[in-house]
Amino acid sequence: MRTLFTAELSELAEDLIAMSQHVDSAITRAAEALLTENVELAQTVIADDAKLDDLERIVDERCVMLIAQQQPVGLDLRTLVTSLRISAGLERMGDLAQHIAEAARRAYPGSATPDSHREIFEAMCVAAKQTSSEVVELMQNRDLNVAARIVSDDDTLDDLHSKAYGLLLSDEYTGSTQETLDIALLSRYFERFGDHAVNVSRRIVYLVTGDHTGHHASI
Amino acid sequence: MRTLFTAELSELAEDLIAMSQHVDSAITRAAEALLTENVELAQTVIADDAKLDDLERIVDERCVMLIAQQQPVGLDLRTLVTSLRISAGLERMGDLAQHIAEAARRAYPGSATPDSHREIFEAMCVAAKQTSSEVVELMQNRDLNVAARIVSDDDTLDDLHSKAYGLLLSDEYTGSTQETLDIALLSRYFERFGDHAVNVSRRIVYLVTGDHTGHHASI
Repeated sequence: MRTLFTAELSELAEDLIAMSQHVDSAITRAAEALLTENVELAQTVIADDAKLDDLERIVDERCVMLIAQQQPVGLDLRTLVTSLRISAGLERMGDLAQHIAEAARRAYPGSATPDSHREIFEAMCVAAKQTSSEVVELMQNRDLNVAARIVSDDDTLDDLHSKAYGLLLSDEYTGSTQETLDIALLSRYFERFGDHAVNVSRRIVYLVTGDHTGHHASI
Repeated sequence: MRTLFTAELSELAEDLIAMSQHVDSAITRAAEALLTENVELAQTVIADDAKLDDLERIVDERCVMLIAQQQPVGLDLRTLVTSLRISAGLERMGDLAQHIAEAARRAYPGSATPDSHREIFEAMCVAAKQTSSEVVELMQNRDLNVAARIVSDDDTLDDLHSKAYGLLLSDEYTGSTQETLDIALLSRYFERFGDHAVNVSRRIVYLVTGDHTGHHASI
């Protein structure tokens, strides 16, 4: 029985890794679509989000089934409940990648990243892609140093978000209302993407160490 | 043993009702603070959010403890796992009320709701307060008609959100960038508040009927 349960937990871990890889692919394509005004690529991100939702449902159903069948306690129970939280966080990261792709699609054939903020969004795309590939890495190898890098990328995204808004409110900014809207929302999507990556990574750390720091790491 | 478990489940339900009442109080005060430029009131919403976070943690710990100790199956397990989801949704609604209060505080002594959008935000405040009081009602009496009203309020908030953005992009809009930012973000906070209310209500309906419609109602 125990062997079977171990196999089930390992499949669950694989499903979560698959979700994180899906998010990584989505944000990478969304960032590319945003910076190159590639509407077809944006469209693939939007169309693929349903797959991530399906994965989330599969993970959730597996967790609940395992709790019901195996009646786990201790570490096993912690793993299952924390997995439910991780799947919700990854699903939300996928939604944000989709929102970024939608902004790129809406602006097409124009750009949703006006010249005034081009460099900031280029840097945001780099940081977001980095953070999502680190989430995949953390899922796979549970190396706590990777979790620290995710927090650092989130700090970068927070700084860039402040910079984007500061620039919007500066005297030299002369963009249209549509541009202001695009910048305000896109910047917030990237900032939230970083927040969710940190929350997901804290939960993974909690699985590994049993330690959670801060509210969002709570099971 | 069963009697004790029933008592524990009933306490859990009380905690969730307390969370929903907290959200209702927070959005009511945030809306008032927003429309009357009352910075002290906004401050109370911001300061109180930590209490909601504490309540969420208490609910989550109770759910996990009950799963571990009682090894529930069937309806009991469904109740516990769904309660975890409901607490996360209510916590997020509280965050959004806090963001609205923060916008009111930032704009003080000015208003974060410029004249151009005043009526829209007044209507948003009405709909948001209504939806949060309906969530409390649904938690207390599990009347499915209330769930339908929550969906209808969410439709209202979606319409108002579209209207707010449409007006921003219309020729007659002449607001400053700061005003555009305030309107864009506040409108989105209200729209998201409605979305989370619908998700929470779907989960409650799922508890009552065992039926979930659409992705977000999944456990």
